[in-house]
Amino acid sequence: MKIRYSQVTIVPGNPQKNFETCQKAAQRAKKDGIDLLILPEMAIPGYLIADKFEENDFIEDCEYYSHKLAEEATSDFSLIFGTVMFFETLSKIAKTGTDGRKVKLNTAWVAQSNSVTYKVKTLLPNYREFEEPRHFKDNLWVKNNLSEWDMFQPVIVNGVSVGVLICEDGWDDDYEIKPFERTTECGAQVLVDISYSPFTLGKNNSRDRRFSAHARNLHRPVLYVNGLGLQNNAKTVFSFDGSSCAWNSKGEMIAQSKMFTEEDVDFNFEKGELTALNPKPIEKHSDIQDIHDTLIYAIRNYMAQNNLQRVVIGASGGVDSTLAAALYVEAIGKENVLLVNMPTKFNSKTTIGIAEKLAKNLGCWYTSVPIGESAKLTASQINGLKPKNSDGEKFELQLSSFNMENVQARDRGGRVLAAIASAWGAVFTNNGNKTETTVGYATLYGDVAGFLATIGDLWKHTVYELCKFINDVNNKEIVPTEIFTLKPSAELSENQAVDKGLGDPLIYPYHDRLFAALQEWWNRASLTEILQHYLDGNLAAWLNHDTETELTEALIKEHFPTAKEFIADLERWYKLFKGMGVAKRIQAPPIIAITRRAYGFDYRESAMQPYFTRKYLELREKALAEI
Amino acid sequence: MKIRYSQVTIVPGNPQKNFETCQKAAQRAKKDGIDLLILPEMAIPGYLIADKFEENDFIEDCEYYSHKLAEEATSDFSLIFGTVMFFETLSKIAKTGTDGRKVKLNTAWVAQSNSVTYKVKTLLPNYREFEEPRHFKDNLWVKNNLSEWDMFQPVIVNGVSVGVLICEDGWDDDYEIKPFERTTECGAQVLVDISYSPFTLGKNNSRDRRFSAHARNLHRPVLYVNGLGLQNNAKTVFSFDGSSCAWNSKGEMIAQSKMFTEEDVDFNFEKGELTALNPKPIEKHSDIQDIHDTLIYAIRNYMAQNNLQRVVIGASGGVDSTLAAALYVEAIGKENVLLVNMPTKFNSKTTIGIAEKLAKNLGCWYTSVPIGESAKLTASQINGLKPKNSDGEKFELQLSSFNMENVQARDRGGRVLAAIASAWGAVFTNNGNKTETTVGYATLYGDVAGFLATIGDLWKHTVYELCKFINDVNNKEIVPTEIFTLKPSAELSENQAVDKGLGDPLIYPYHDRLFAALQEWWNRASLTEILQHYLDGNLAAWLNHDTETELTEALIKEHFPTAKEFIADLERWYKLFKGMGVAKRIQAPPIIAITRRAYGFDYRESAMQPYFTRKYLELREKALAEI
Repeated sequence: MKIRYSQVTIVPGNPQKNFETCQKAAQRAKKDGIDLLILPEMAIPGYLIADKFEENDFIEDCEYYSHKLAEEATSDFSLIFGTVMFFETLSKIAKTGTDGRKVKLNTAWVAQSNSVTYKVKTLLPNYREFEEPRHFKDNLWVKNNLSEWDMFQPVIVNGVSVGVLICEDGWDDDYEIKPFERTTECGAQVLVDISYSPFTLGKNNSRDRRFSAHARNLHRPVLYVNGLGLQNNAKTVFSFDGSSCAWNSKGEMIAQSKMFTEEDVDFNFEKGELTALNPKPIEKHSDIQDIHDTLIYAIRNYMAQNNLQRVVIGASGGVDSTLAAALYVEAIGKENVLLVNMPTKFNSKTTIGIAEKLAKNLGCWYTSVPIGESAKLTASQINGLKPKNSDGEKFELQLSSFNMENVQARDRGGRVLAAIASAWGAVFTNNGNKTETTVGYATLYGDVAGFLATIGDLWKHTVYELCKFINDVNNKEIVPTEIFTLKPSAELSENQAVDKGLGDPLIYPYHDRLFAALQEWWNRASLTEILQHYLDGNLAAWLNHDTETELTEALIKEHFPTAKEFIADLERWYKLFKGMGVAKRIQAPPIIAITRRAYGFDYRESAMQPYFTRKYLELREKALAEI
Repeated sequence: MKIRYSQVTIVPGNPQKNFETCQKAAQRAKKDGIDLLILPEMAIPGYLIADKFEENDFIEDCEYYSHKLAEEATSDFSLIFGTVMFFETLSKIAKTGTDGRKVKLNTAWVAQSNSVTYKVKTLLPNYREFEEPRHFKDNLWVKNNLSEWDMFQPVIVNGVSVGVLICEDGWDDDYEIKPFERTTECGAQVLVDISYSPFTLGKNNSRDRRFSAHARNLHRPVLYVNGLGLQNNAKTVFSFDGSSCAWNSKGEMIAQSKMFTEEDVDFNFEKGELTALNPKPIEKHSDIQDIHDTLIYAIRNYMAQNNLQRVVIGASGGVDSTLAAALYVEAIGKENVLLVNMPTKFNSKTTIGIAEKLAKNLGCWYTSVPIGESAKLTASQINGLKPKNSDGEKFELQLSSFNMENVQARDRGGRVLAAIASAWGAVFTNNGNKTETTVGYATLYGDVAGFLATIGDLWKHTVYELCKFINDVNNKEIVPTEIFTLKPSAELSENQAVDKGLGDPLIYPYHDRLFAALQEWWNRASLTEILQHYLDGNLAAWLNHDTETELTEALIKEHFPTAKEFIADLERWYKLFKGMGVAKRIQAPPIIAITRRAYGFDYRESAMQPYFTRKYLELREKALAEI
């Protein structure tokens, strides 16, 4: 039997368009003499469409196009694809869920000439950005409501018993039901897992381990078919990278599709074994290459999905806006990128020079709009202003120098960049990194603004690594090399003068790792553990997770020689992380997800007062008493 | 047996503080000779704390304070309260959930002198803002993992068999398991439902019907104990109104606590019947009173929780900012409210006059900051600006009159209000209503900005009703009466001149109802249904849901005499609702939830291209062909 998978692009919330994409894949397959075509999970509705799943007319539309796609099957050609359906359509039994709405299922349809067989997803993820139980019932629920239902029965296609599974069904470590095993026990000769799973740093390695183990342990070849596309849940933008793979019955990988690339890959299934028809060498990437490719894909598609062509970037000469500029020029072309430097007297010639050089290196548009006059106008309008009440009382307003820092930041984002973007028919970018985003080290309606937080899920050290990577792969200076030695600074006051070596209050090699431990680790680090490791002198090793980074015990000891200093710093940032940081993130733009815990829908927050547990307070007291 | 419930205030994410609140209630009860005290659900951790439930050290802290609270029990005094716990603590069996983390439970603890009995929530809501299955396993799961577990066994307190249930357990319409019935079958003589359930317009009526039916049908008295507090899930702020109640075994309400008021209410339980010890008349409010009280409570508490004292309000003389001003003065005092009028040449004397009169009526602070000069400065900096590239090419920027409207809006929000707020140690409000929010009729970093979208869940007609209500209950003009006849307008150009009767493009009596049907209805209206009802001539009746509103068939016919005009308007706003509206909501401030579908966490969105189903497109084609 000739099997093909098509790694196709799925558009969220557009069944008509997705039907057309899948139909074209089916027609190509038929022309090429394929017996069985496999398409991704949720290929008709799209996956991250949020409460759109609550709209019955949309589900009906998906069912209509799913049936139409199923009609592509002939006596010589079958296809498997993922879609949403009402339980009622499968069972002829009307049922509502615990939300009072019609029950819906995440299904795989196996379309053959005279029939469609429905298979239902067994394991519904309900963590990170996933919330399938909000919308769907699972395979077990169907069994409990439909006595004749056979949960794991394979489907016979061309005489071959095909086990049909859906995405999380293959990630069964933490579940009691093991769908791969159960389907194999029911006689499956080959295991197909249709997926729609987003890029997450390190995920593909973890997937390779699991699926290879399924194949090896069950002695069955496995096909993992993942879709492409850019889908979001408002605050967080996920890149679905494809990277579909196949393993033979020994668990050896026999094919792996390129990330973010539409591909048809063909196999022969014979005598219980799967072979790739046009085997290609399996490529291995570095993490930094994956991050780069994901960002380029996300930028390109986010722009296209929103009918945007041009961006304006506030180019300060700092590393974050520099990286953003390099990424956008690569993703959408130098003719669509305008860098705007917005100096005041606090901006050094150094950083202005870097911004100019960057524009030259990239060949994109550049201009300068000083903001001193406008900041002065704001100061003159506010300072000395005397609001009155009806009793004739009044008071006087005065902007502090700290207030004036924020005035400058808002003047750049909310006034200049927004106006230039609208005049050019463009949007302007947000250039905040994850370290700043964690503690809200940015001004609302100023540098927090922008249409997309392109690098909002990259820690500061990754921003540098990516800049180096871009120069390396291009084998020339794109990112001005001065960046790598410049002290990071907001340049909003004399206290942040880069030429005097002054700048940000963050010690990035340490705070990057600290914040990752608090926000990104699966079992998140507690303040108690962090303080205990500091006291034990092994905090750097613990935060580094056995990898080598710039963070050393010596660096921690240098900055925080005493527990008092360590605790003061820890609590200062923790309060910002859980306090003002949350308030700013609520109004921040969408973030492109890279790590396994991006801010937004993947990491759900509540604006609350920061809290210290009793255990931490006890350890803190002990540590301070010992000084 | 003397039973008391204490309607206490729960602070999200602060077990220590909540323990102290509950301990005080316990000590009062002991002093007053109470046998059994009942406290709300999740009284120790708080409820809407998002992924804070993933932090093991926080859960351990909750368990510590829960045990400490349980120690208040004596041989004469028992108490029931809600808290979170690890399954491991209950069972001594280590278990991880499908997210790989330790299993947690939403529990009621019945603390008696020598024991604590744990009861587990059976029904876990997973819709709207609720997502309990993300964090907790339910009673049935516990039974499946702990064979000796008795799911519904009542707890014997002072010889009385008390059925202990948690919140959703009483809202069992859409669930197969009926916890109230099951517990009664197991011998419960009185049914206690500890809750932590937020205010939603109309919810209390629905609750009265259900719980009264439980009491009547099961012939058991019912105590429904709900907590107070303001908790949020980042984008949406929920007001927990208390409104605890009790019903006797005939289903007659015998007590109802005031909304948003801390109260101890005492009962006697004897011979199977519950009587209130100090019965008070049961008050009935209008919806508009409930909305008013909820907003005042939410404002007050949101300010307090964030250590905020003062607000600045951009007062345009329009109805939205006027309502906001009246609410803030009532909630936090006139000395803490500053109205700022920010005129340009497009602002009429009429609206400026209203803003001045409003400040006088309220007795709060007032000032005026014209923005013409700043807008001119921006125009002069951008118009004629010529970005260049390294090839010496250039192009010229020019702001259109539409661009200048947005420049004005951003100048008001992002420049003036933000600067004044920072100089005064205040924050500034967002005054957008739900109608505007639905279609994004506002400017990002301009009128979309603000620390809190106070009236962001009120349709325009409710904004008017609330203004009328405020004048009525105060029996004087607080809201200037000119507001009620003024045409709503943004006054950003000559085309929006109110004195010429020009203004917003929205026909509020119609679009309010249309948008509610699309966004708020439980089974949401589809475009197909809407168009069909228009064609059938009964759209107003359908949108009005049998209530009387300003929307009539004649009004619809007057504005949209033909299907072509109707469809053009429908699609225009639908595209904004699903397109730019989403993009703006992503960066909008938190909204105080009032209706049963507030934007934000309660109504999850994905930024996608608007989509029209095949069914709609067919009906549309037919309708247009018939012209």
